[in-house]
Amino acid sequence: MAYKITVIPGDGIGKEITDAAVKVLKKTDEKFQLGLSYTYKDAGGTAYDKFGTPLPDDTVVACKASDGVLFGAVGGDKWDGVEPSLRPEKAILGLRKQLGLYANLRPVKVADALVEYSPLKPELAKGVDLVIVRELIGGIYFGDKCESEQYKGSERAWDLENYSVPEVERITKLAFETAKLRRGKVTSVDKANVLATSRLWRRTTAEVAKGYPEVALNNLYVDNCAMQLAIRPAQFDVIVTGNLFGDILSDEAAVVGGSIGILPSASIGTDTSLYEPIHGSAPDIAGKGIANPMGTVLSAAMLLRYSLHEEAAAKAIEAAVDQALADGYRTADLYKDGFQRVSTDEMADVICERI
Amino acid sequence: MAYKITVIPGDGIGKEITDAAVKVLKKTDEKFQLGLSYTYKDAGGTAYDKFGTPLPDDTVVACKASDGVLFGAVGGDKWDGVEPSLRPEKAILGLRKQLGLYANLRPVKVADALVEYSPLKPELAKGVDLVIVRELIGGIYFGDKCESEQYKGSERAWDLENYSVPEVERITKLAFETAKLRRGKVTSVDKANVLATSRLWRRTTAEVAKGYPEVALNNLYVDNCAMQLAIRPAQFDVIVTGNLFGDILSDEAAVVGGSIGILPSASIGTDTSLYEPIHGSAPDIAGKGIANPMGTVLSAAMLLRYSLHEEAAAKAIEAAVDQALADGYRTADLYKDGFQRVSTDEMADVICERI
Ligand SMILES: CC(C)[C@H](C(=O)O)[C@@H](O)C(=O)O
Ligand SMILES: CC(C)[C@H](C(=O)O)[C@@H](O)C(=O)O
Repeated sequence: MAYKITVIPGDGIGKEITDAAVKVLKKTDEKFQLGLSYTYKDAGGTAYDKFGTPLPDDTVVACKASDGVLFGAVGGDKWDGVEPSLRPEKAILGLRKQLGLYANLRPVKVADALVEYSPLKPELAKGVDLVIVRELIGGIYFGDKCESEQYKGSERAWDLENYSVPEVERITKLAFETAKLRRGKVTSVDKANVLATSRLWRRTTAEVAKGYPEVALNNLYVDNCAMQLAIRPAQFDVIVTGNLFGDILSDEAAVVGGSIGILPSASIGTDTSLYEPIHGSAPDIAGKGIANPMGTVLSAAMLLRYSLHEEAAAKAIEAAVDQALADGYRTADLYKDGFQRVSTDEMADVICERI
Repeated sequence: MAYKITVIPGDGIGKEITDAAVKVLKKTDEKFQLGLSYTYKDAGGTAYDKFGTPLPDDTVVACKASDGVLFGAVGGDKWDGVEPSLRPEKAILGLRKQLGLYANLRPVKVADALVEYSPLKPELAKGVDLVIVRELIGGIYFGDKCESEQYKGSERAWDLENYSVPEVERITKLAFETAKLRRGKVTSVDKANVLATSRLWRRTTAEVAKGYPEVALNNLYVDNCAMQLAIRPAQFDVIVTGNLFGDILSDEAAVVGGSIGILPSASIGTDTSLYEPIHGSAPDIAGKGIANPMGTVLSAAMLLRYSLHEEAAAKAIEAAVDQALADGYRTADLYKDGFQRVSTDEMADVICERI
């Protein structure tokens, strides 16, 4: 076997959507002779129930030994009572840190067939095609923190936002490289009128930009970016930003298309990378076979592109998904009169037929 | 004279929009016999040019001695080269800190006459009526910061996010009080799955909520809130959050109506409060008499309500603005075929006639 993929279904709808994506991967493998093999591992609440930890070592070891990780989703009310350090989402924060997944790539493309699902007026949603490049293992997420201390006579808590020059260089270089293969525009987002960390970020980005004369850089304050995404998202090509701003802006950008069930993401590591849909584990519909598998299927396509460098196979999957939508197939989340309603598994078949 | 108002026109269109608002205040004063007097002071780039500082002491003293401050806008490319600590926006950060303006109230209401200006589909924009209550003198804005230090072999910068229990109590109490006079719903926004500061915020908010059994509290992560504002803003009544999240979310929420020129804000202090439109100083159109004065006029109405407790006079201004829009008067920013185009000053007259 040429390529080893670790599959982590996780919780809720995680199993059914990763099953669907693996079905599509197998069909793609047949056609392109990729030689894929699959190892299944646990994470999240499911892992906590079985092993008392949301991220077993065994899972991390398997991920490190593989060529790419396909991740479903984790979380659910069921584990609300669990102590914070053992909650399902710690699996995803732990994987990011332990695999060194320093960059999260979130493409948001509004397919013509789906413009009508956008909360925006059609003329504003049409043609949106952007990628958010979010730093994923630095900033205030992983800075020192204090849950409670006495300070000037009262109780306070704190978190340290911080970035080093090498951290900013690494993520902005990836953004410039990404822009080179796209429309050549990078928007770096910060709050340099208030934060010292943002001023270092802006200085460093300007230095990195010198190495990419063919790419245009502009800087935007995060509040302004939040506005612009809401009124004219089509203006953006590549947006690069820190961990916290990236968390907020990628979710805001994700809904521009009105169909978050179809959006993929890639978390790039120096060694192994991880691919997952941007939606959650949706425990309320788990096991019903109605979840939209397209976000996971397109994540699998990103795995083929970025981790295996199998561009033709990646494109084949993306084209098949577009075709399935253009042919009128819809899972429950996007179903409307006049379309063909299909289950999670049937959608996988519909996509496979088009590969 | 019964009430002293400090007027700070600031930079760019600041002069013409505060002139328009004072005209409306004078008409309101005639009708309601309020006894208003006005003192004009400088701030921003204009103050820097005259006095070498964006916030002269004299301005702060006048603000403190008055019953309310009406602020235009500050900033402009002209001062881009000025050293960071003397830039125009330092005037606004300085006033916040020196006047103790701990809460920023940003109402976003989409008038029926303006639904068509929203970037959202009309059915999503219709009926939006929310207020964001943003903490304004704490958090990462005013925490310790470091522009540059050597750390583990490389250069880094940092900023300290932090909140104390009394700070959170003060702002959330104001949010609950605000909700009591509205639809009785508070949404507290944080990132408690990642930040220690947010966990203290959430704990404290839950305590404060016990004192308001008639108000419903729910907690939302900031990324989810950014999504919800973009897809279903009408679900919100009062949103309360920290300084940085508030900065981002209030600007995102502001564009929901598609006409930021009409949005006011109030920055509430323990003593004096400050009122300003949410838009900037727009140097490109300054002096042309085409700026929309409605955001400033409605800020003046908030001044009458919150600082002078002249509710009837405040309502009269708000009703006059609504009527001017319903009667089809539009400044350049909102002008479309079939409407009556008016200048900044003419719009002030149109509003005055309706008081
Ligand atoms: C679950 C949570 C910790 C996570 C984050 O904030 O990074 C999520 O919101 C995401 O964006 O993947
Ligand atoms: C000018 C800037 C410092 C300010 C802020 O971030 O608070 C502005 O964006 C605002 O929201 O009033």
